[in-house]
Amino acid sequence: MKRIKIKELFIANPVGTKVCIKGWVRTKRISKQVVFIMLNDGSTIHNLQIVTEPEKFAEDIMQHIATGVSLSVCGTVIASQGGNQAIELQADTIEILGTATDYPLQPKKHSLEFLREIAHLRFRTNTFSAVFRIRHAISYAIHQFFHEQGFVYLHTPIITAVDAEGAGEMFSVTTLNMEQLPKTPQGQVDFKRDFFGQKTSLTVSGQLEAEAAALGLAEVYTFGPTFRAENSNTTRHLAEFWMVEPEMAFYDLADNIALAERFLKYVIGFALEHCKDDLEFLQKRELDARVGKQTDKSFLPLLDRLDNILTYPFACISYTEAIDILKASQPNKEKKFAYPIDEWGCDLQSEHERYLVEKHFTKPVIITNYPRAIKAFYMHQQEDGKTVAAMDILFPGIGEIIGGSQREERLDKLTEAIQSMGMNSNILQWYLDTRLFGTVPHSGFGLGLERLVQFVTGMDNIRDVIPFPRTPGNAAF
Amino acid sequence: MKRIKIKELFIANPVGTKVCIKGWVRTKRISKQVVFIMLNDGSTIHNLQIVTEPEKFAEDIMQHIATGVSLSVCGTVIASQGGNQAIELQADTIEILGTATDYPLQPKKHSLEFLREIAHLRFRTNTFSAVFRIRHAISYAIHQFFHEQGFVYLHTPIITAVDAEGAGEMFSVTTLNMEQLPKTPQGQVDFKRDFFGQKTSLTVSGQLEAEAAALGLAEVYTFGPTFRAENSNTTRHLAEFWMVEPEMAFYDLADNIALAERFLKYVIGFALEHCKDDLEFLQKRELDARVGKQTDKSFLPLLDRLDNILTYPFACISYTEAIDILKASQPNKEKKFAYPIDEWGCDLQSEHERYLVEKHFTKPVIITNYPRAIKAFYMHQQEDGKTVAAMDILFPGIGEIIGGSQREERLDKLTEAIQSMGMNSNILQWYLDTRLFGTVPHSGFGLGLERLVQFVTGMDNIRDVIPFPRTPGNAAF
Repeated sequence: MKRIKIKELFIANPVGTKVCIKGWVRTKRISKQVVFIMLNDGSTIHNLQIVTEPEKFAEDIMQHIATGVSLSVCGTVIASQGGNQAIELQADTIEILGTATDYPLQPKKHSLEFLREIAHLRFRTNTFSAVFRIRHAISYAIHQFFHEQGFVYLHTPIITAVDAEGAGEMFSVTTLNMEQLPKTPQGQVDFKRDFFGQKTSLTVSGQLEAEAAALGLAEVYTFGPTFRAENSNTTRHLAEFWMVEPEMAFYDLADNIALAERFLKYVIGFALEHCKDDLEFLQKRELDARVGKQTDKSFLPLLDRLDNILTYPFACISYTEAIDILKASQPNKEKKFAYPIDEWGCDLQSEHERYLVEKHFTKPVIITNYPRAIKAFYMHQQEDGKTVAAMDILFPGIGEIIGGSQREERLDKLTEAIQSMGMNSNILQWYLDTRLFGTVPHSGFGLGLERLVQFVTGMDNIRDVIPFPRTPGNAAF
Repeated sequence: MKRIKIKELFIANPVGTKVCIKGWVRTKRISKQVVFIMLNDGSTIHNLQIVTEPEKFAEDIMQHIATGVSLSVCGTVIASQGGNQAIELQADTIEILGTATDYPLQPKKHSLEFLREIAHLRFRTNTFSAVFRIRHAISYAIHQFFHEQGFVYLHTPIITAVDAEGAGEMFSVTTLNMEQLPKTPQGQVDFKRDFFGQKTSLTVSGQLEAEAAALGLAEVYTFGPTFRAENSNTTRHLAEFWMVEPEMAFYDLADNIALAERFLKYVIGFALEHCKDDLEFLQKRELDARVGKQTDKSFLPLLDRLDNILTYPFACISYTEAIDILKASQPNKEKKFAYPIDEWGCDLQSEHERYLVEKHFTKPVIITNYPRAIKAFYMHQQEDGKTVAAMDILFPGIGEIIGGSQREERLDKLTEAIQSMGMNSNILQWYLDTRLFGTVPHSGFGLGLERLVQFVTGMDNIRDVIPFPRTPGNAAF
């Protein structure tokens, strides 16, 4: 008999029919008259309850059924006698596919730290199966959003000789034998003998290559891994993470902002529509964890936080307005900011962003037109001579979720910016070419996928929203 | 006035309405009475013809309009007086957005080799815009196929301490200062002081991690970059390429094969449905290139080659049957194979695969049950003691496009295979865990995206189907 997925079974509710189910035992309860086995097959957060009489099967089968064991069960779908589901399965045959002696995932609450150490098994837990199904839905929605509007998905290079940010620590990539490095006559490492004939690194962004593509295909986006070799052991940093970077010819800053807001609402709406069960599970998990803890009056349950994103237009202010609000704010006057806001030009810290989003506006905030000095070389210089056409989108509890800008399309301004930052314009000659030949106004932004998954799932630590996190000292699995 | 895309204009055919178009000039023809400008905006292979009288605009505008220049043109849509399109644009205003002096992409035939050197500009050519729109459609279809059947898209790590194949040259990843490497007291490089506290490399496959996920989420797939540091300068190898790797719990070899054939037909069908114009352009390009050359009687035009994939079931034979066919074949008897087939156990070479696919079956061929000795350690060992439940899918003109297998789910057999190949089972302990706890029969396969894009576009060189190819000695852009 063909296996049916538990998710499909709950949709069909085929009471009275014979089916075959395969999955992993979450729990077993046994009494003299009846055995209840909760089986999960990864297709949904919900388990299927299997009921049978203990004497119906050989004792060694019943004995071996325990948490973590994989089973193939055939039987008749019956209306549930209770429990959370409408149906359960009356077992005719039970086959043990794989045993699980000393299984580390016993049916009790495990800490997320412990589960991170067995990341290869955490796919079998409620929390992580929900998180990774939601991560999938978000990823799919991203592709669907861009595809529907005619964007071209572009695979920009991972190994690169370019440093897109002009800053940021990078991982080196080499095939040289590090125990016996070839040297130049001057005694330096001879990278001419490396695989690519030069020094190469892992990309920190596909933006520059995506711009080149946008200046031909008009609307493109990347969705791939990017890397930062920063020694940051925080709940918000990974050495390897996934970025989405759309680049659009003929978009100015306003077009860029409108696209980004529409994009975030679309993706979060998709998750709400397609992952209701998983989100409800994570919401309950979060609420349970708060029981008995000090209450924060502004706290909203997960689904309300997501609904709010869809309901209200984002606030949109200039950097200058942001500084004015922050300067006049209670915490600034009371000297409660670690970095007091005194004058125009300073960079916004996380505490300032959180104040604007969580206290002042209580919704996402878009900040535009930052000082030129604190932003990257490729941003479009405004007429005022001191700001650039940047835009950051700040989310409650997350901070910056999107950073973008209109790009500098004027060759002279761009060349000057590269030189004034002391960057190597030779290596960027191809990038300058795109402004030399048929340049057009264009814009783009970057979204860190894991930050968005954190927001949608409510998970505190970024290491819990990527299957196998890479952080300083950790490349396990 | 809001810009409209040329693709949308050709669908709407709004004769008589005013529109605004932005794009790049492909060609300009000028006479005393009339100017024709062919404008392309990347949304479609087709150019929009702009017509106007030369004296309507200032002379310096008309002078500067040349191939590569970017324009914003507003005017009235009129029925075409001729040409290939139903409509053209009568210009009211023309604004030059960016000039293009000494533009390298003049309207003549450029060699693909030359275009590879200006990969940042080749998005503006007919051939490459078509290829990259098709690459997008294929990528999107891959996500749609798996999403529709409930698979979870999984991001497996790029930086890894595991060597999935137990072979294959890998790129090292490090943050150590290569000019001053820290050493252990024994004089070796001290990788404990590297970013991850150990030696790490770029992944050659996400399969092992995807298996761990499948043994919890049931059906998952990866779609990400993979790396081979092989010094292969061929038309079929890249150092950095994109792989798709589905892994499915509860699938045996037959389920795996059925999924793979359905998958390939779905994706190619999607491209045929959504990229008709681009495929027709590439078909014509290929036919034009063949004019005057020696004819190969079995040659089929591109669209026919793609249709054939959808029309016929793939041939499916065992390795043993393949050897029998090859042994008895004309070229083998006439000693025309560089590697003559004499006995069971030898690996199949490209010449053998091509004979089976292009001469014997004239359609895709699935070969199953290869000798254990020539396949990877993780493949399910068959009862005969000498073969494994492998399957390779061979495509005309391409060779192996998919390689997969039922995975070895039995802990004892897997451990034995790892040991017999002299691999380090310590580093794979987590992988063995997935067999120790609730193991189940499962299967998966890998598809090299670029091989598939080559097949669908008909492009000869794999460097022409990825935006910025990485090959030995080349990491430009």
